[in-house]
Amino acid sequence: MKKTFSLSEVYRLLEPGPVVLLTTVRAGRPNVMPMSWHLMMEFTPPLVGCVVSNENYSFASLKASRECVINIPTVELAKTVVACGNTSSSSVDKFKEFGLTAQPAKCVKAPLIAECYASLECKVVDPKLVAKYDFFILEVVQAWIDPARKKLQTIHH
Amino acid sequence: MKKTFSLSEVYRLLEPGPVVLLTTVRAGRPNVMPMSWHLMMEFTPPLVGCVVSNENYSFASLKASRECVINIPTVELAKTVVACGNTSSSSVDKFKEFGLTAQPAKCVKAPLIAECYASLECKVVDPKLVAKYDFFILEVVQAWIDPARKKLQTIHH
Repeated sequence: MKKTFSLSEVYRLLEPGPVVLLTTVRAGRPNVMPMSWHLMMEFTPPLVGCVVSNENYSFASLKASRECVINIPTVELAKTVVACGNTSSSSVDKFKEFGLTAQPAKCVKAPLIAECYASLECKVVDPKLVAKYDFFILEVVQAWIDPARKKLQTIHH
Repeated sequence: MKKTFSLSEVYRLLEPGPVVLLTTVRAGRPNVMPMSWHLMMEFTPPLVGCVVSNENYSFASLKASRECVINIPTVELAKTVVACGNTSSSSVDKFKEFGLTAQPAKCVKAPLIAECYASLECKVVDPKLVAKYDFFILEVVQAWIDPARKKLQTIHH
């Protein structure tokens, strides 16, 4: 069960460089893709920069909706993360296919992933470098974490 | 002993999100600082984005020289990395103080750190987001790795 997590502590979740699962919504259907090209850019408000290739199905969703959720999986989900990376939402509903549970977010339309121990609701605040580098600057507007989960091991490329 | 490393493979070194040691040169003296706010932005040529706070001594060096080296330490250097983060080059020559060995680079004036298993010589190719976010976009122009070192364990925040 996830609870609200302090925005000023978000950097602790992303600074170690974990592989994350990015969710977006396009035409009412949720998408999910693994992502490891991301960085913290500011503590407060927490800003995150990330590259989502324009070859990915999620690129158009993120660019159009300007919203996403960064979900942080642990090693127990490693096989699912790899499977998500080897398929495209253009042909598969990855949530159904890989048994992921979409939960409603508070501030954005993209869903939280119940199986991930932490989720960060984000809005695109600066799209200036999207055209040249597929680089989005996001502000984390709401953070969630499952406080019951201890000794977490994140996934690294 | 480091050898040339393929530029197209550089992403494998940074994608896991290790803490790195950034070297720059200012007024002929080398600086070093730990950094974990970085991401890959392109495979070929390898582009790396990073935030170097304007409160850090290295900010002015990087902004003026437009050159740096990203050195990747392993856990054996953890104490040195922490010590480098808790001091400023404004008052201490960290190379002398912490026993780091500066080696000449091939394409930039900033030095390689001999004790790190890999080093990436970089040039700033896009400073557009420096003013607003302290965000530099670097191109890796020469990469080095010590092929004799196996089972490496990098450092993560």
